[in-house]
Amino acid sequence: MAETIFSEMSRLAAENDAINLGQGFPDTPGPREVVDAAVAAMHKGWNQYPPAVGIPSLRHAIADHQRRWYGLDVAADGGVVVCSGASEALSSAMIGLLSPGDEVIALEPYYDLYGATAALLGATLVPVRIHAPDYALDASALRAAVTERTKMIVLNTPHNPTGAVLSRDELQSIADIAIEHDLIVLSDEVYEHLVFDDNVHVPIATLPGMFERTITVGSGGKTFSVTGWKIGWATGPADLVATVLGVKQWFSFAAGTPLQHGIATGLELPDDRLAHLADDLARKRDLLTDGLRELGLEVFHSKATYFVTADVAPLGVTDSLEFCRSLPERVGVAAVPNQVFHASPVGVETQVRFACCKRDEILADALLRLRKL
Amino acid sequence: MAETIFSEMSRLAAENDAINLGQGFPDTPGPREVVDAAVAAMHKGWNQYPPAVGIPSLRHAIADHQRRWYGLDVAADGGVVVCSGASEALSSAMIGLLSPGDEVIALEPYYDLYGATAALLGATLVPVRIHAPDYALDASALRAAVTERTKMIVLNTPHNPTGAVLSRDELQSIADIAIEHDLIVLSDEVYEHLVFDDNVHVPIATLPGMFERTITVGSGGKTFSVTGWKIGWATGPADLVATVLGVKQWFSFAAGTPLQHGIATGLELPDDRLAHLADDLARKRDLLTDGLRELGLEVFHSKATYFVTADVAPLGVTDSLEFCRSLPERVGVAAVPNQVFHASPVGVETQVRFACCKRDEILADALLRLRKL
Ligand SMILES: CSCCC(=O)C(=O)O
Ligand SMILES: CSCCC(=O)C(=O)O
Repeated sequence: MAETIFSEMSRLAAENDAINLGQGFPDTPGPREVVDAAVAAMHKGWNQYPPAVGIPSLRHAIADHQRRWYGLDVAADGGVVVCSGASEALSSAMIGLLSPGDEVIALEPYYDLYGATAALLGATLVPVRIHAPDYALDASALRAAVTERTKMIVLNTPHNPTGAVLSRDELQSIADIAIEHDLIVLSDEVYEHLVFDDNVHVPIATLPGMFERTITVGSGGKTFSVTGWKIGWATGPADLVATVLGVKQWFSFAAGTPLQHGIATGLELPDDRLAHLADDLARKRDLLTDGLRELGLEVFHSKATYFVTADVAPLGVTDSLEFCRSLPERVGVAAVPNQVFHASPVGVETQVRFACCKRDEILADALLRLRKL
Repeated sequence: MAETIFSEMSRLAAENDAINLGQGFPDTPGPREVVDAAVAAMHKGWNQYPPAVGIPSLRHAIADHQRRWYGLDVAADGGVVVCSGASEALSSAMIGLLSPGDEVIALEPYYDLYGATAALLGATLVPVRIHAPDYALDASALRAAVTERTKMIVLNTPHNPTGAVLSRDELQSIADIAIEHDLIVLSDEVYEHLVFDDNVHVPIATLPGMFERTITVGSGGKTFSVTGWKIGWATGPADLVATVLGVKQWFSFAAGTPLQHGIATGLELPDDRLAHLADDLARKRDLLTDGLRELGLEVFHSKATYFVTADVAPLGVTDSLEFCRSLPERVGVAAVPNQVFHASPVGVETQVRFACCKRDEILADALLRLRKL
């Protein structure tokens, strides 16, 4: 298995002392209370094994969060499993629920882990493309992709790399298909709180008949700007959650105890603290979008996430992968080629994803550097 | 996949407010510097994604450690991968290196993860038993267990649950077989620094011809009494280490950034700090061993690890699994039945593993409670 694109681009960024707009992580601290709570936990000596399923206070905080934000009735005991990052929740769910030969549908572009994990376990990822500039779901294409071997749909909303947010209508079409064909939905919602303007994140588990067939994945790292803590979770009905736990207990076994305490505290903060983070990020999305447009690039509107996608064809680029591999050395900026989120690069050869979750002066500097192209 | 035995017994301990001599974790803090360094890292804002392979300072500290303690020449770049606990290193190595139908030999009793991960990926675990009271290796039994499908030997030294330490001669017999049959050795050495008296831990990778076929697994949690931090690692030749990284990047992706900084600091502490921890643990091993013997039990001598095994047959026990499931409620003590470390319980039906890594007064209280039986 090759190095992930995020590792490669972060490595090239480090080697070339470049501004890293590749891998998605913020360069400003999250809520102070979150770090303080993790530090306090360490000083209290809470450094030994937590339960594999997660510490009770975090599981309760996650269940409360799902209830408060979405009206979802998640059981803190049995309906939540804390994982070593959303990554582990996603791969454990796929490994636990899919068998070799099974098909799993994903909206394309899709996060690299889905395809890699499918390959690892011998399942086939079947992509259903959503297209720039509006990334609307083609429900008939989704329906046409279902075969007798289809077992699961992997959703990602808000969507990386496009910044799309699936609407309630789109989710309803997906739900209809999932119910009709008795499919499991693995819903990667790690950017749930990084949603801009009037866009609204809707968990597909809230739709009628969906809770019992959906694993919803969340991320403490994304929500509280501590991506290096690797605290994620899966919520859902007891049987599906037990399957995730049954697999991940043989991977990391459990996630870092004091960091779990930090995230539990974060989830108990007043909800408007999260809105502040999103507003700030929306402003950065504008900064980066406007700046890239001033460079003459087409930029697709991002409704959410850390990311903005631009078409770099006006720069004479024909292959965004090559372009991104040379960019750190050429101008001191790292970015990610959208084609790595595709089974086939056809149609997205010149799309590049830039992270906007950086300090204003860093974004300004990156734009200045890109101007050299 | 069912709950692990450690999860089950820790849960029963919590539900019954019992003293937990089941799952292996200490109840005293590790070196202050380790926690201080993790706290400092958090305050410095080192809370974002680390490289998937691990932060450079920790990789260098691990390589230095292997050189300083064992004379092993491990490359900090390419020869080390940091994982979310030794668990993730072990399962990633097995998943990356074994295919369905392959056979993997493990000394029995063996840690539950080896068998579970083999089952998960469709490989077959072939046990080669070592017997109480001295747990000597039967090299001819090991040799006889090798077939055309054998791909790997999983070693664990110092050995959980028995507290055995493989001697250089035993390791040489294993090395001979591994080389003759071109087998990979996955060497779980997480208890490398918890070795008592004059016993010496020898990594099998130090034997001639072995480095290039061996993945050695270590644990920051075990070495520095922070089992809940989930910082482990694999070291070895570049190709094998790359395989571990290639798999684990799709599981947790990376391990907790600030905790990696803490463990890096730990590995740079003067070596005698580790000797102190082991001496203290040896004393606790004696406390527990003597106490259990006073209860009339046969106790097998433990040379290392957190654990002591006793035969509870004198208490009228015939099934240690049932015994351990009822013990928390009956007398307020939790322990682990050794039969869960076996493919077949025959011959070990009445063996029970007790953790000695607890404060003296807790061990004394546990012995008092056990006296009620
Ligand atoms: C786990 S590294 C990738 C981080 C991320 O989600 C992204 O950059 O898309
Ligand atoms: C990962 S939980 C098990 C801890 C342990 O190594 C043991 O108790 O044997």
